[in-house]
Amino acid sequence: MSSEFNLIDRFFVQGNLSRDDVDLGIGDDCALVSVPANHQIAVTTDSLVAGTHFLADADPVRVGYKALASNLSDLAAMGAKPTWVSLALTLPQSDEVWLKDFCDGFFGLAKQHNVQLIGGDTTKGPLSITITVQGIVPKGEAMTRKGACCGDDIYVTGNLGDSAAGLEVVLNASTIDKSELEKELEKRHYYSSPRVELAQQIRHLCHSALDISDGLISDLGHILKQSGVTAKIDVEKLPVSEELVQYCQNNGDKYQKMALTSGEEYELCFTAPKINREAIKQITTFLNQNVSIIGEISNESFTNLQSKVQLYKNETSLDWQLSGYDHFRSEA
Amino acid sequence: MSSEFNLIDRFFVQGNLSRDDVDLGIGDDCALVSVPANHQIAVTTDSLVAGTHFLADADPVRVGYKALASNLSDLAAMGAKPTWVSLALTLPQSDEVWLKDFCDGFFGLAKQHNVQLIGGDTTKGPLSITITVQGIVPKGEAMTRKGACCGDDIYVTGNLGDSAAGLEVVLNASTIDKSELEKELEKRHYYSSPRVELAQQIRHLCHSALDISDGLISDLGHILKQSGVTAKIDVEKLPVSEELVQYCQNNGDKYQKMALTSGEEYELCFTAPKINREAIKQITTFLNQNVSIIGEISNESFTNLQSKVQLYKNETSLDWQLSGYDHFRSEA
Repeated sequence: MSSEFNLIDRFFVQGNLSRDDVDLGIGDDCALVSVPANHQIAVTTDSLVAGTHFLADADPVRVGYKALASNLSDLAAMGAKPTWVSLALTLPQSDEVWLKDFCDGFFGLAKQHNVQLIGGDTTKGPLSITITVQGIVPKGEAMTRKGACCGDDIYVTGNLGDSAAGLEVVLNASTIDKSELEKELEKRHYYSSPRVELAQQIRHLCHSALDISDGLISDLGHILKQSGVTAKIDVEKLPVSEELVQYCQNNGDKYQKMALTSGEEYELCFTAPKINREAIKQITTFLNQNVSIIGEISNESFTNLQSKVQLYKNETSLDWQLSGYDHFRSEA
Repeated sequence: MSSEFNLIDRFFVQGNLSRDDVDLGIGDDCALVSVPANHQIAVTTDSLVAGTHFLADADPVRVGYKALASNLSDLAAMGAKPTWVSLALTLPQSDEVWLKDFCDGFFGLAKQHNVQLIGGDTTKGPLSITITVQGIVPKGEAMTRKGACCGDDIYVTGNLGDSAAGLEVVLNASTIDKSELEKELEKRHYYSSPRVELAQQIRHLCHSALDISDGLISDLGHILKQSGVTAKIDVEKLPVSEELVQYCQNNGDKYQKMALTSGEEYELCFTAPKINREAIKQITTFLNQNVSIIGEISNESFTNLQSKVQLYKNETSLDWQLSGYDHFRSEA
């Protein structure tokens, strides 16, 4: 690390928490952490690269938030409790203003979830962020993609599609004066809230789960493949915001197609036996978190495009052509 | 991850080990791992960025090896036993040949140290590699930078300076026909061997340790600062290879200055009380690993440039102007 990067130390140390299970934090060759008895560690890594996952001139507060949120969402998918994070930051130059804002976004979210920065690396080069976040989960209690059973309800958290609409706004350079609606959707693209607390409370009631950061239709496929089952989805049950419907007005089914394919929302999809409906409802009500049942796990074979997912609307099967969410596809 | 990157899965899964403590490996939102009772986890992260830490056209076998070696060296510095690694790889395009070679270098070293790849991310963008590697160490037994005592011997492992000489060869574009000596030094720049096994065997005999990836004189400063002591180094005792001496011939003290400042060699510097000399010698002899005593921890105050380190040659104090190792400094 060049001496010009010294200011990074200042921001990183100032913004940080101090957890009891961190025996040695930033400042040695490694961090040392302790794990409570009868727990497993959940580990996940995500990179955000300027030009691929965000625009280089994006608000650094939003970038810092989003970089951590995408990783926390992976922990949420397992029902793990976040504990420690390592941050590798590559910057074209030492930019104090950018860095301060990035840290505001990053540490703001880290504090919300009681995650301590335990190390990382700061290097010079094209702007990118790689985060490894860790969490703990009682042994054998993690949710995985395997385990969905025929007859399970299929749930999603929150609303779907806002992030994709927000990304359209971000990428639509012709929009100089953004409407309030567009600004709101843009904000939602950056500020999805990972479902960390909810996931820990419901994990014992679920058969399978994952985060739908690549879009529902694409990610649900992983559960179906690993569990050896299929799914029926009622597109009328997809939870969508009023803002998305308004944004898509005069575009027919667009809002539902966006809900099926929108990525980077950090919502969860999970399956649970019908017998657990009431228990899940009580918990989500208590936590004031919206979840929606959008369909059912099946063992039927379907012959349409997605093959493992059959879409319905008012009990009529649909044959929509959908593709997975691809960051900045047109530029890739 | 775009579909074009699917081949990455193939290489990553093929090359990988299967450890008993990995409860869930690649293929879910997180990996799940278990830690033995009464152990701490050591965690470290390093990035290698093309153009900053290696040339974009460098041999990918070497890049894959080096990226992991630099991280393993940080674990060695704590005396930890490597266990799991996460790999974030950003590539400008999907290049099967490059990737296969990179994996050969990476997994070749991973197997040597019984480290399992448990996750990561592959993204499109300017070439860079970020690795988080984890290891385990019995509670309270890790070596740290704090703890060096007045009177401790100061040790280094291996030879110093070859990596800096090798980097000179790499960067000297005017050298079209490299001599055998130059090729050998270039190879050493990429293929330093992290002192993982040695560190685990001697950790109970040491007061402090760190890896000298930023150069001895710069990194030793961290031990001295955190331990509140100073050091006397006899430059005649610095371990150097015949090749380095030959490379530096007719350049006076250059080989010793290189030994003091050469980075990316992944050797360790550690301090231990004199009473442990014989025990350390027995272990290093048994493991067939070279270590050298190059000086002594002191509590004297020095007034020269480095202030915390006094260099000597034949009992005469030196006033060399040295700076820390800086990757590709001229381009930065």
